Amino acid sequence: MAHALRLARRGLGNVWPNPAVGCVIHRDGHVVGRGWTQPGGRPHAERMALDQAGPLAKGATAYVTLEPCAHHGRTPPCAEGLVQAGIARVVSALTDPDPRVGGRGHRMLRDAGIVVTEGIREAEARELQAGFLSRIQRGRPFVTLKLATSFDGRIATASGESQWITGPSARLHVHALRMTHDAILVGGNTARADRPSLNVRGMTTPRQPVRVVLSSRSLPDLPSEGPAHGPLWQIDASPSEAMEHLARQGITRVFCEGGGVLAASLLGQGLVDQIVGFTAGVVLGGDGLPAVASMQLVRLADAPRFALAETRQVGADLFHRWRRILSTAG
Amino acid sequence: MAHALRLARRGLGNVWPNPAVGCVIHRDGHVVGRGWTQPGGRPHAERMALDQAGPLAKGATAYVTLEPCAHHGRTPPCAEGLVQAGIARVVSALTDPDPRVGGRGHRMLRDAGIVVTEGIREAEARELQAGFLSRIQRGRPFVTLKLATSFDGRIATASGESQWITGPSARLHVHALRMTHDAILVGGNTARADRPSLNVRGMTTPRQPVRVVLSSRSLPDLPSEGPAHGPLWQIDASPSEAMEHLARQGITRVFCEGGGVLAASLLGQGLVDQIVGFTAGVVLGGDGLPAVASMQLVRLADAPRFALAETRQVGADLFHRWRRILSTAG
Repeated sequence: MAHALRLARRGLGNVWPNPAVGCVIHRDGHVVGRGWTQPGGRPHAERMALDQAGPLAKGATAYVTLEPCAHHGRTPPCAEGLVQAGIARVVSALTDPDPRVGGRGHRMLRDAGIVVTEGIREAEARELQAGFLSRIQRGRPFVTLKLATSFDGRIATASGESQWITGPSARLHVHALRMTHDAILVGGNTARADRPSLNVRGMTTPRQPVRVVLSSRSLPDLPSEGPAHGPLWQIDASPSEAMEHLARQGITRVFCEGGGVLAASLLGQGLVDQIVGFTAGVVLGGDGLPAVASMQLVRLADAPRFALAETRQVGADLFHRWRRILSTAG
Repeated sequence: MAHALRLARRGLGNVWPNPAVGCVIHRDGHVVGRGWTQPGGRPHAERMALDQAGPLAKGATAYVTLEPCAHHGRTPPCAEGLVQAGIARVVSALTDPDPRVGGRGHRMLRDAGIVVTEGIREAEARELQAGFLSRIQRGRPFVTLKLATSFDGRIATASGESQWITGPSARLHVHALRMTHDAILVGGNTARADRPSLNVRGMTTPRQPVRVVLSSRSLPDLPSEGPAHGPLWQIDASPSEAMEHLARQGITRVFCEGGGVLAASLLGQGLVDQIVGFTAGVVLGGDGLPAVASMQLVRLADAPRFALAETRQVGADLFHRWRRILSTAG
């Protein structure tokens, strides 16, 4: 299953609206098929692994990170494919929350005489599927907020100078993070002031992320869609409405890169699930531009709280990742 | 020498105006004496280790983290003590920069026929002696600035609520850091607003740090000196004059705990050698109180820069320590 989870990870950011799934087929102690959801969401992981295994799938065990699909969509259901290939046993990490599947995949397998084991490495699978699960269960994407700041939380000096606070390694790391998200989100002020490219550079990506600008005002001339740039969507709505809209469009993972007003608004409305911080060893002072604008918090207890998930050095900067702590109120 | 350096570390914060030295005496593969500078600076590490070794010191090897002293002060010089005890070999990490010693300790040993090896683990010894070396060579103490903030560099909400942003483990860690510094420094506003205790609590310390308040105005009633509180010194001077004054008083390591105006002033004048950050997973927004006040920086290149030395999780918070990067201008 660890192998299947690693394969699944390859799909993050490039398989929306589908989940990023991994599949490994084992027979007599050997791997005979490996698959992961392909860019754009098809073929599915199971189809790819079964095609690779061919006749060796007969009597083999399939490890899947998500319950195989049971509905006829644009392709025949994967559960049917596993049955037809003669798979003897299926080990799955997670039951699909999609109401079109919801246990029916596992049932279809059992009805065909396949031994099914569920819930293996479920916590890791849930973490990997956080975007897809959020879209299905909460009706909004999983949102990561990036804050690349000085030691004291600033993104520019009082005079407006901002290039560069963090170093080249941190910037490359940001591109790798963009690659694992379906869409990059910025506010209108940032789009107008920085005219950001919002694409993945410095590494090969199977699919450029969607560029989303949340603004009611007109935008500057940004590069048109092509091999180097994803679609450009302008949304004139509140942050929470915008997130619902993105989920309806199939977006599962959003990477927000500012500015300070949008960051404060997303945080204030509880829409941020994860923060990734890049902290530079430079101090700019209280007159520098803050990374997060006014939140008008009265009580410290009302501030959004996050739990440290990982920290390490990236180039000369400090990288730290935090996951939202949900209050008892939810 | 690693053993001697570990022993030396015990003296940090409680041996000023003397350096924190460690000494290990080895004979035939056994440790026969261990010593470290005692609280208040005396006895010296070599004296303690020699007393422990007694007659076994004859023909043994002494490892010392700093060149043994050669001048007659309140006690006979340690170099003389090593000779009289019949030590055969001395391994030292660092030549004492004190003009009263400056190589004379090593020479006195060699003149008596002792084999001397210098410069072993010198970089580690320099790091350990950063405070003492700074006082002797730069005429000011080594300064650590503590910044315990929200994710976005704030120390209180817009409404002024500040207890608690970081957790109990981080606060206990702060007490351990206070213990390794000779003096705790705060600005007048912090002293008046918070009436901080500026002592070591929750652990046993051989000597409470000196409390230093930099202010020209009158102070509130703070606890008087005693077992639980070090001496209280009010200094009415510029930050750099204050540092020179502290060095003349024998202070080698200063721990600054704010507030924002003093932090900005120390940083702006290049007086901060090390920053320790405690970052909580909470976001307070741009209207919260910044940990570092206005620095009126025009160019990003003029901002003080620091290199990451260590990072780890402390309780629920992120601990990170940075050392000053000196520009080519020095």
